[in-house]
Amino acid sequence: MFVLVNLKAYPSDPVAIATAAHEIADESGVRIAVAPQAAHLERVAETGVETWAQHISSVEHGSHTGSTLAEAVADAGAVGTLVNHSERRLRLADIDGALDAADRAGLETIVCANNPDQIGAAAALGPDGVAVEPPALIGGDVSVSQADPEIVEGAVEAATAVDDSVDVLCGAGISSGEDLAAAGDLGASGVLLASGVAKADDPRAALADLVEPLA
Amino acid sequence: MFVLVNLKAYPSDPVAIATAAHEIADESGVRIAVAPQAAHLERVAETGVETWAQHISSVEHGSHTGSTLAEAVADAGAVGTLVNHSERRLRLADIDGALDAADRAGLETIVCANNPDQIGAAAALGPDGVAVEPPALIGGDVSVSQADPEIVEGAVEAATAVDDSVDVLCGAGISSGEDLAAAGDLGASGVLLASGVAKADDPRAALADLVEPLA
Amino acid sequence: MFVLVNLKAYPSDPVAIATAAHEIADESGVRIAVAPQAAHLERVAETGVETWAQHISSVEHGSHTGSTLAEAVADAGAVGTLVNHSERRLRLADIDGALDAADRAGLETIVCANNPDQIGAAAALGPDGVAVEPPALIGGDVSVSQADPEIVEGAVEAATAVDDSVDVLCGAGISSGEDLAAAGDLGASGVLLASGVAKADDPRAALADLVEPLA
Amino acid sequence: MFVLVNLKAYPSDPVAIATAAHEIADESGVRIAVAPQAAHLERVAETGVETWAQHISSVEHGSHTGSTLAEAVADAGAVGTLVNHSERRLRLADIDGALDAADRAGLETIVCANNPDQIGAAAALGPDGVAVEPPALIGGDVSVSQADPEIVEGAVEAATAVDDSVDVLCGAGISSGEDLAAAGDLGASGVLLASGVAKADDPRAALADLVEPLA
Repeated sequence: MFVLVNLKAYPSDPVAIATAAHEIADESGVRIAVAPQAAHLERVAETGVETWAQHISSVEHGSHTGSTLAEAVADAGAVGTLVNHSERRLRLADIDGALDAADRAGLETIVCANNPDQIGAAAALGPDGVAVEPPALIGGDVSVSQADPEIVEGAVEAATAVDDSVDVLCGAGISSGEDLAAAGDLGASGVLLASGVAKADDPRAALADLVEPLA
Repeated sequence: MFVLVNLKAYPSDPVAIATAAHEIADESGVRIAVAPQAAHLERVAETGVETWAQHISSVEHGSHTGSTLAEAVADAGAVGTLVNHSERRLRLADIDGALDAADRAGLETIVCANNPDQIGAAAALGPDGVAVEPPALIGGDVSVSQADPEIVEGAVEAATAVDDSVDVLCGAGISSGEDLAAAGDLGASGVLLASGVAKADDPRAALADLVEPLA
Repeated sequence: MFVLVNLKAYPSDPVAIATAAHEIADESGVRIAVAPQAAHLERVAETGVETWAQHISSVEHGSHTGSTLAEAVADAGAVGTLVNHSERRLRLADIDGALDAADRAGLETIVCANNPDQIGAAAALGPDGVAVEPPALIGGDVSVSQADPEIVEGAVEAATAVDDSVDVLCGAGISSGEDLAAAGDLGASGVLLASGVAKADDPRAALADLVEPLA
Repeated sequence: MFVLVNLKAYPSDPVAIATAAHEIADESGVRIAVAPQAAHLERVAETGVETWAQHISSVEHGSHTGSTLAEAVADAGAVGTLVNHSERRLRLADIDGALDAADRAGLETIVCANNPDQIGAAAALGPDGVAVEPPALIGGDVSVSQADPEIVEGAVEAATAVDDSVDVLCGAGISSGEDLAAAGDLGASGVLLASGVAKADDPRAALADLVEPLA
C-alpha cells in the first residue's frame, strides 16, 4: 500500500511531519510520501521523505507567471504530483497537459476524480495512478473505504476496464489502520490522506497507528 | 453523416442560416443542426431546424446566476448540446456534471476534445458522441479530415476502445463536400463546422455544396 | 428605487413572473426589471417587462463558442446586464471587457461585488451602477439592508468616492417593502432580489407587497 | 526606482540570477527583487536577494490542495508578491482575498492590470503598489515607457485619483537603462521586467546595464 499524506494548506509543520513520515516509512517498510505546499517542497525533500507536489500546471517553460512548472517542482525535490484534486479541479485538456508536463519532468502522477466515470476518464489519459475521493467525505470522520465501498470497487473496475496498468488509490476520511486495510481489501493499492495526519495532535503517532496493520 | 453548424459568436444572421439549414436538410435528407448563442436558441428553433446549444453548465436548478441551465436551453428548443468545446473548455468534473444535466433535460450530447487521449477520456463519461478538433486547425482553411487524418482515425479508435456506442465526429477547417466525405471515410459519423458556413458570403450555398456529395 | 428580479437558475415560470412584474411596474410606477436565463431572454422581453441579462462575456464577435455575446443578449431584448454576480465572479480584466462589450451593445450595466473595497474597484471601471451583496446573506431570510446596514453605507461611500455618478444597489435577503425602504434610507437607489420573488408561492403578490410602500 | 525581475516559467537558473541581482543591488544601491517559481522561493531567498512570489491564492489555512498559501510563501522567504499578473488573472474577489492573505502573512503587494481603468480598480483594493502592463507589449522588444507613455501616465493618474499612497510601476518590454529612466520620467516608481533579464545570455550584465543610469 502507498500512503500519500497531503498537507493541503493546513497550519502544520511540514518538516516535522516529513521527518516522522520518513522514519515510519523506514521502520515499517510501507511506502509513505508527503505532499506539501509548493513553497515547502525543498525543505520537505531535504528530510529524505518521498516528496510529491499537490498540483502542477499544464504549461511548458515560457511566459507563465504564477504557474507551477513541473520542472521547478522536480528541481525542488518532488518525484510525483497529484493532478486534478477535488480542491484544484482542472479542465480536461489541462489534466492531459499536466500529465505531459509531468512526463517531461520525470514526475509520477496520480489523477484524482470524484466517481467511477471520472476515474475511467482519468485512466484514459495515461497517468501512473488514479485516486477516487467522493467530495462529500473529504475532511470527514468516516472513511470512503468503510462508508462507500462501492465507489472504491467501482473505481477499480472503471480504471481497469480502460487500462489495467493504472494504480487505483482512494481517499476521503482515511485515518486508521482499519480504513487502510479496508481500502486494500476493495482493490486499492494506496490511500490519500490529509487531515487524519496533518491535523492530528501527534502526526507521528497518527502515521504509526495507520501503518501498524501493514508493518 | 451529421452536420452540426456552430455559429459561435460570429456576426451572422442566425435565423437566415437556420432557415437555410432546415431547407437543405429537408431537400438532401442529410441531418443538419444549428448551434447559436443561447439567447438566439428560441428564434433558431422556431425555424424548425434541429437546434443545439453551444454549451451548458453542470448545475441543477438553484442559485446559479449567469449559468446556462440545461432545462432552460431545452425549454428554448434545443435538443442537444456541445460540451467542452475547445473555446469553452470545462473541468473534468463539470463535463461529467454537464452530461448529467443534459440527461435530466433530455438533451443529446457531444463532448469535444483535442486529441485521441482526451477523446477516450470523454467517451468514458458516457456522452452520445464525441468530436475531435485539433486546436491548431480550428478556423483555418485546411480540414482536419485532409490535413490530419491520423487524429480522426485515432479518435475513432480511442472512443471505440472505451465505448463502441459513442459516435465520433470531427471538426476544424471543414468547408467542402470532399472534407465531409473524407471524414466519413476515416470513420467519423459527422462533422462540426463553423466559419465555413457562418462566415460564408452565402451560407445557403455553402451548406448546399457541403452536403451535395451525400444527397 | 429600481427593483431588479434575478431569476438565477430557479425552477420558476419566467414568463409568468415577467408578466406580473410588468403589470406591477405599470400600476405602481416603480421601475422593475427581470433577469432570466439567457435562453429565456426573448420570451421574457416579449412580455414587455424591462429585461436584463444575468451575465455577459467580455468577448467581441468571433470564435467564442459558448460565450454570452453582448450583442446576442441585446438582440434577444435585454436592455441591461449584471456583471460579476457573486455566483458568476469574473476576472478583473473580464469585468472591464464585459463593460466595454455592454457599451458596444447599448446595455446598461450593474457590477456586483461583495464589500465596499470591491465596490470602489467596480466603480472605477465605469459601470452605470454597482450592487453590494454580502455572500453570507444571499438566499437567506435576513435582508442586507437590515442585517448589515454598514455594508450598504460603506458601499455608497466607496462608490461615491470614486465616481459619484454611479448608482448603488444592494442585494441579499431582500423580500419585503421594509427591506426596500431600509435600503433606500441607507442611500441605495435600488435592490437586487431573487428568491424572495422567484421562489414565492405567488410571485405577483410578493412583488406587489414589495413595492407597496413605494407606490 | 524598484526593479522587480519576474522569472516566470523561463528556463533560467534562478539562483544565479538571484545572486547577480543581489550583488548589483548592493553595488548600485538600486532596490532589486527577484520573483521565481514558488518551488524556487527558498533557494532564491537564501542568496540574500529580496524575494517575491509571482502569485498567491486568496485562501486562508485549510483544505486548499494546490493553492499558493501566503503564509507558505512567506515561510520560504518571500517578502512580497505580485497579484493578478496578466498571465495569472484573478477574479476581482480573489484579488481582494489575496491582498487580505498577503496582509496576514506580512507580504508587500503589487497588483498588475492592463490599463488605467483597471489600475484605478486595483488601487481601490488597497495594495502597496500597482503595475500597468499592456498585454500587447509583454515579452516584446519595445518598452511600454517608450511605446505607450500615455498608458503609464494614465495609470499614475488613475491610481493617484483613488489613493495617492499607492506606488505605480510599469512593465512590458523593459530591457534597458533608458526604458527605466523613461518610466521614472513618466511618474513610475519602479518597473517589472522578465525576459530582458531572465532570457539574457548574461543576466548579470543585463541587470548591470539596466541600473547603470541610476547608480
